[in-house]
Amino acid sequence: MSSEFGKILRVSVFGQSHGPAIGIVMENLPAGEVIDEAELLAFMGRRKAKGPLSTLRREDDIPMILSGMIHWKTCGSPLCAILENKDAQSKDYEALKEIPRPSHADFVAFKKWGKHTDMRGGGHFSGRLTAPLCIGGGIAKQILARRGVFVGAHLLSVAGIEDEPFGLHPTQEDFDLVAKKHFPTIDDAAGDKMQHAIKEASANKDSVGGIIECAAIGVPIGLGSPMFEGIENKLAAAIFGIPAVKGIEFGSGFESARQRGSEHNDPIILSEQKDITMEKNDAGGINGGITNGMPIRFNVAFKPTPSISKPQKSVHLTALEETELIIHGRHDPCVAHRAVPVVEAVAALVLLDCLLEHHGH
Amino acid sequence: MSSEFGKILRVSVFGQSHGPAIGIVMENLPAGEVIDEAELLAFMGRRKAKGPLSTLRREDDIPMILSGMIHWKTCGSPLCAILENKDAQSKDYEALKEIPRPSHADFVAFKKWGKHTDMRGGGHFSGRLTAPLCIGGGIAKQILARRGVFVGAHLLSVAGIEDEPFGLHPTQEDFDLVAKKHFPTIDDAAGDKMQHAIKEASANKDSVGGIIECAAIGVPIGLGSPMFEGIENKLAAAIFGIPAVKGIEFGSGFESARQRGSEHNDPIILSEQKDITMEKNDAGGINGGITNGMPIRFNVAFKPTPSISKPQKSVHLTALEETELIIHGRHDPCVAHRAVPVVEAVAALVLLDCLLEHHGH
Amino acid sequence: MSSEFGKILRVSVFGQSHGPAIGIVMENLPAGEVIDEAELLAFMGRRKAKGPLSTLRREDDIPMILSGMIHWKTCGSPLCAILENKDAQSKDYEALKEIPRPSHADFVAFKKWGKHTDMRGGGHFSGRLTAPLCIGGGIAKQILARRGVFVGAHLLSVAGIEDEPFGLHPTQEDFDLVAKKHFPTIDDAAGDKMQHAIKEASANKDSVGGIIECAAIGVPIGLGSPMFEGIENKLAAAIFGIPAVKGIEFGSGFESARQRGSEHNDPIILSEQKDITMEKNDAGGINGGITNGMPIRFNVAFKPTPSISKPQKSVHLTALEETELIIHGRHDPCVAHRAVPVVEAVAALVLLDCLLEHHGH
Amino acid sequence: MSSEFGKILRVSVFGQSHGPAIGIVMENLPAGEVIDEAELLAFMGRRKAKGPLSTLRREDDIPMILSGMIHWKTCGSPLCAILENKDAQSKDYEALKEIPRPSHADFVAFKKWGKHTDMRGGGHFSGRLTAPLCIGGGIAKQILARRGVFVGAHLLSVAGIEDEPFGLHPTQEDFDLVAKKHFPTIDDAAGDKMQHAIKEASANKDSVGGIIECAAIGVPIGLGSPMFEGIENKLAAAIFGIPAVKGIEFGSGFESARQRGSEHNDPIILSEQKDITMEKNDAGGINGGITNGMPIRFNVAFKPTPSISKPQKSVHLTALEETELIIHGRHDPCVAHRAVPVVEAVAALVLLDCLLEHHGH
Repeated sequence: MSSEFGKILRVSVFGQSHGPAIGIVMENLPAGEVIDEAELLAFMGRRKAKGPLSTLRREDDIPMILSGMIHWKTCGSPLCAILENKDAQSKDYEALKEIPRPSHADFVAFKKWGKHTDMRGGGHFSGRLTAPLCIGGGIAKQILARRGVFVGAHLLSVAGIEDEPFGLHPTQEDFDLVAKKHFPTIDDAAGDKMQHAIKEASANKDSVGGIIECAAIGVPIGLGSPMFEGIENKLAAAIFGIPAVKGIEFGSGFESARQRGSEHNDPIILSEQKDITMEKNDAGGINGGITNGMPIRFNVAFKPTPSISKPQKSVHLTALEETELIIHGRHDPCVAHRAVPVVEAVAALVLLDCLLEHHGH
Repeated sequence: MSSEFGKILRVSVFGQSHGPAIGIVMENLPAGEVIDEAELLAFMGRRKAKGPLSTLRREDDIPMILSGMIHWKTCGSPLCAILENKDAQSKDYEALKEIPRPSHADFVAFKKWGKHTDMRGGGHFSGRLTAPLCIGGGIAKQILARRGVFVGAHLLSVAGIEDEPFGLHPTQEDFDLVAKKHFPTIDDAAGDKMQHAIKEASANKDSVGGIIECAAIGVPIGLGSPMFEGIENKLAAAIFGIPAVKGIEFGSGFESARQRGSEHNDPIILSEQKDITMEKNDAGGINGGITNGMPIRFNVAFKPTPSISKPQKSVHLTALEETELIIHGRHDPCVAHRAVPVVEAVAALVLLDCLLEHHGH
Repeated sequence: MSSEFGKILRVSVFGQSHGPAIGIVMENLPAGEVIDEAELLAFMGRRKAKGPLSTLRREDDIPMILSGMIHWKTCGSPLCAILENKDAQSKDYEALKEIPRPSHADFVAFKKWGKHTDMRGGGHFSGRLTAPLCIGGGIAKQILARRGVFVGAHLLSVAGIEDEPFGLHPTQEDFDLVAKKHFPTIDDAAGDKMQHAIKEASANKDSVGGIIECAAIGVPIGLGSPMFEGIENKLAAAIFGIPAVKGIEFGSGFESARQRGSEHNDPIILSEQKDITMEKNDAGGINGGITNGMPIRFNVAFKPTPSISKPQKSVHLTALEETELIIHGRHDPCVAHRAVPVVEAVAALVLLDCLLEHHGH
Repeated sequence: MSSEFGKILRVSVFGQSHGPAIGIVMENLPAGEVIDEAELLAFMGRRKAKGPLSTLRREDDIPMILSGMIHWKTCGSPLCAILENKDAQSKDYEALKEIPRPSHADFVAFKKWGKHTDMRGGGHFSGRLTAPLCIGGGIAKQILARRGVFVGAHLLSVAGIEDEPFGLHPTQEDFDLVAKKHFPTIDDAAGDKMQHAIKEASANKDSVGGIIECAAIGVPIGLGSPMFEGIENKLAAAIFGIPAVKGIEFGSGFESARQRGSEHNDPIILSEQKDITMEKNDAGGINGGITNGMPIRFNVAFKPTPSISKPQKSVHLTALEETELIIHGRHDPCVAHRAVPVVEAVAALVLLDCLLEHHGH
């Protein structure tokens, strides 16, 4: 099992949900970058469980920096940060060893690593592993901001309820506004409806999925390469590393398959400042794999949480008999709203990597 | 500029549309694999321009094997195959050096590599570069078939016209049936409508996009890893290497964001042969990044060809003045139908890579 | 700054000498491997400071396993192990910030990362970082042993005093014998002389270098690839990761440059068991980058410790004036004897990586 | 089988000695670099067979540029250059399929790829594969020269006869002087003796080895990283990709193992221009894996050519009987003198890669 990405900014995530600790190692971070601890904790806080919308597991995560920073300033060495695992209730998972949960990784983990695998709380497959990603992403966001690059995201849709999308040129203020909200939508009314839908699903022992829209502004023109090392390739490869992601689209994405060229093409114009720019952004800020100066824009589809309390069909792995499974324990009825900062984190890490590759390090 | 992917089966594509030749290098192919030349040429033929639906550029591509095979049997050495470029009409592109085509890579290439870049015929960004990918993919498909793995694809939608999707368990015969058709749809009536829509767009100096559905059967359980080295990550990273791709989704993909867990989850059951399997396949054959034995299934969105003959807004790069651009030369009014074997090729290369990684080489 | 290697078995080392902790992350370890804790601690103990031969810094290192093992059995997830840093005396290093030590990394670190760099105790450049390598290597050695592969090393030379080399076919017992010794030579008399030379150098405020011979037996035929992914390439790339290494040679190495082909070539013969083998081993077990079934054999040259107490010429970095530097603090008068298990560790990690690549994982 | 290296400047070599063509693919070369064809051909000419010292196979190699350059100016796209194979006499190799040559790759290739392997003329293991490396290296040398970096090498020793080493600060002129000679030594008298020794070995149906000294000047301070991504690691990993290399050492190398710290350490001083520099260069220009501004200096040991005409012991692979082997065909009695530009080529490729990584691309 391996969990790393990045060409220059190498990111490696380790840990199991119910092991002693989880963490992240980041290589080739620039030296001398002051990281604001409060800002980092606030960013990580956006991922935390929230009242009745989320798991009851408490995560008061304070990252411990083992290396790579002195007094919250990067020193050039590989950075390792860890989070201790507390409040893990492994007994809830004993029964699952024999009866895999549908659409969860239990079955494939059993087939691949046999009984040695650690699937307590989802093991290394758990959404808990996105917490160290947020440490890394929170650091990357601060470094990017110092270079004029900002990343933001919001919940575009949950259970079919739609938020309004970012505008053509979202601003840092737009990003901050969503980031500060209890529930990450632009339109609060839509957010209220989504929260209602999540609670309803939970009451029905069920779960719901959602779509996150992410944007990055201030990205220099010229990052990326055609074919296999483009920005879309790199973002997609990393974003599918977030548990429950089933799709990604850039700019007008799947809708572009229904467009005509004359609709889809982004007319090239001069801005008021006489910079070359585009009139709209169906390309999502990327042409031929390379950033074109417009905001990078992509949507990410999250499936509903697979762990639901409704009875489900499964098979006893050793008895080889069909059986009914009822999952106990604490589970989020929706992961999409907590995944908003995670998508930002991964995007920030990928963009910082591209920046370090193309501008040197 | 770099154009390579793969961990064990390293694939590197080189060449410009109007340079002397384009080609592919493949490392770590198994030795002793007999490649059927006629089958390879037939596979490559599926990508060729077809009558009024496509560019008028003739591509009678016969791959020249420079290394890695003796008498069409792999010998273990890196394989290099090239295609000579003929019938290139570079004069059509002279004017484009100064005035970038909207939603094409002209602008970013100019910003990144200046006037040194070779954008004749799209240079290295051209769809022509998918021809060597088909050499590699055609070889990978034959090697996979010998191991019981088959990859197939069809045009799921063009300009909003829908083909019927693959069934729950598509067969090798289903794949072969589409592969032999002049136009790659399952439902011929849908195919006729799509061709009509493409011709109509062409007549209107416009272009259309489309969606390709791809499936792979016979893939062993257990390929892939959670988080960043999963099958979805690897397929997505490579598929975005095909020009014009703007989105990818696995299983129920973006639709899953609207589903409830009780709808989306794939019940685990016993097959008639008492194998553990799933009742449906909203996961697209992948749980936690790892193959689960069900067919791998994903959709790829292609935007409409950016090169259209309608007048478009652009900017003269050195004069820095807005201008109207009319693109001359030969251009496909749709790339999606020709991209069907390309998606298969890339999927086959990625799956063979995963197989060689997990089963040794 | 990055510190990782490996293709399948990815190894990443983090930490600074005087930071809170140092550690290692290992990806793609096989699951279900029982690791003997006592054996691991004994292996790590071989690297520890020894009486008057070594630094006075105490390292009672007990690895804390954060992930990847449950009750000392690997579970398939990335393994992270850390060592807390204690007994660090950073004040000794204050003066060095301005005046770089000759042949140490102080000067290049200052030029590269400026004043942000953490060079307390050598920072990430410190020999202390070989301790987590020994955690990883100790684990790899146990996994290799279960597959019939054994790695051993000894001090071939210190300050010009020579130990006897391994024989043509060293055995596991030969390796164990050296491993158990207080000082890692085959010939105890040579070892005594070496220790005397080290003490004498120390008394003279000076240091000495040495050569380590390493061998691996039981390695399957056929690991590696010609040209750039051969076993020599991979071992060399990783071995130069050990601080103070200045050279590596395989088989008869630099001596082979003085040989004739008829002397150097290893005659191919049948063993008593009718296996194809070689009469001698000037190739060091590797032909064309690929293992040939003979023991892998290589020598590693370690320079003398750069930190000596004798006055040395240096330059004040900000005043830009030549000055005399006298280094205080604790420093090993020789690192070669402590590096013996480190060379074994790195060799074991590389060989396990090659095994997992070629035999699958 | 794979044959590639480099992080940013990716280099991949393909081809078999007696296949249709051999070649190189280079990714991420800077755009707009004018390459002087005559200079490139002159550089490649240094590798060619020379009269009675070398194989009788004629290699009038003119590289064909398939991509990546227009009119000898790089355009940013991956560069592919090939050399056609002519004058190959495969019949000489028929007998060798069954009886492996001692210390050649025949045996391991047979064990690894079975009878499918192409070992005609050494296949992909052949020294012939260093010709495309020289195309790449010749291009890299010209790009480096434009940035003030120069790489040179000479034959330090053959059959025990020693050339004088480069001085403390070798100049571009020193490099050019050796490059223009028929036989690449600094001291012509030493060169004459070496040539005599090679001819004598040839007359005795035998072969000799040698050592090459390589240096690079003008390399910026700060390239490389401690531990596993240092300049020594990268150079060593690539240099072992040259067939017949058995050892590499940097600065005082193996000799440093016999030195005291007070001898080995390079005193830090101010130059006349008040730059910080070192009084001598036992470190070979590298501290802690990072360039320190002094010339990079390393030695490479080449074993004697394994193909000698003297009778040798071998084993018939299928009959499993010991036998006597007499190798016919054309073989160099020494490869070291022809390898001088190859070492320069590989060093230039590695250094350009490091430059592009650290300074951006």
